Amino acid sequence: MKDIRTIYLLTGNMGKFKEIDRWLQPLGMEVKLLKRNFIETQADHLEEVILKGMDIINKEGDINEPFVKDDSGLFIDALGGFPGVYSSYVHRTIGNRGILDLMGDRNDRGAAFRTVMGLYLPGKGVSLFRGECRGMISYEERGKQGFGYDPIFIPEGRSMTFAEMSVEEKNAMSHRIKAIRGLVEYLSRG
Amino acid sequence: MKDIRTIYLLTGNMGKFKEIDRWLQPLGMEVKLLKRNFIETQADHLEEVILKGMDIINKEGDINEPFVKDDSGLFIDALGGFPGVYSSYVHRTIGNRGILDLMGDRNDRGAAFRTVMGLYLPGKGVSLFRGECRGMISYEERGKQGFGYDPIFIPEGRSMTFAEMSVEEKNAMSHRIKAIRGLVEYLSRG
Repeated sequence: MKDIRTIYLLTGNMGKFKEIDRWLQPLGMEVKLLKRNFIETQADHLEEVILKGMDIINKEGDINEPFVKDDSGLFIDALGGFPGVYSSYVHRTIGNRGILDLMGDRNDRGAAFRTVMGLYLPGKGVSLFRGECRGMISYEERGKQGFGYDPIFIPEGRSMTFAEMSVEEKNAMSHRIKAIRGLVEYLSRG
Repeated sequence: MKDIRTIYLLTGNMGKFKEIDRWLQPLGMEVKLLKRNFIETQADHLEEVILKGMDIINKEGDINEPFVKDDSGLFIDALGGFPGVYSSYVHRTIGNRGILDLMGDRNDRGAAFRTVMGLYLPGKGVSLFRGECRGMISYEERGKQGFGYDPIFIPEGRSMTFAEMSVEEKNAMSHRIKAIRGLVEYLSRG
């Protein structure tokens, strides 16, 4: 993809912007913010949210540059994938306390943080890149780092929650960074 | 609205179709099913879901007939409005059992079933009609009638859940029928 010089990112989150920028700069690509409304549809899977939202933008039809949009969520096995694509709404309403109430003292506490990242290339359509971090839901909130569900998520092979780790430790197993790696690998080809 | 002869309904639910048909027939209007994808967006309010979805259809631009689309949800006061616009997803994943777990033994059990119904008139835009039924969340599931959250919702002034009532009793206070009445009144004018 040596012909790509600029990639637009649909986000209002400067942390996300800087993170992707750091990964794409070594490829000689510049990341710019695209201030545009991305319609997030109701769906069971992150893939649908990204594909349908990109489809809507594509039909409106005036983007001629490559752009990237991602979405993430926490999927809890015993709750049928809840809160899934609605993770941010659920966190805003019932919060970590609500998730712990729903889990009660059940033993089956497996869960996964997932990110799906879509890359739209004009004339080529959409490619998806996925990242997952498996783990379990803790029995109580622990730690002050991070945000969202970090205080109740213990990644596989560890005993600390994400909120008890440093940013560097967490990033080393981050679902989001796994998805970015997939994107970078794809863009490095050819 | 004497010039309107046909109204299209966006639904796959034949029960909803028959219900609206029964109300609009006396106005000399025929209801037809519109088999078309309606994109439900993520939003905090039912109004947004209807308005944004209709806006998307409008931009695609090939509907020249009046059409109706509605959405409903259960909004629980103590849970910040959860499950709200995601009521059907939440019911599919954590179910009534999950809602009761979240409520625990708290006293503040106020809730409302809400319907928002949008009417799109070509050249005139969208009108919204609302219906609400206030009530409370029960302490356990009761009754076999109805569907969804009916076994855990006790309408105001009653002691039975919706699922313990006959269809006629429930319809007499139904949020959905209140919204339909608003639509019928609007269409009866002029």
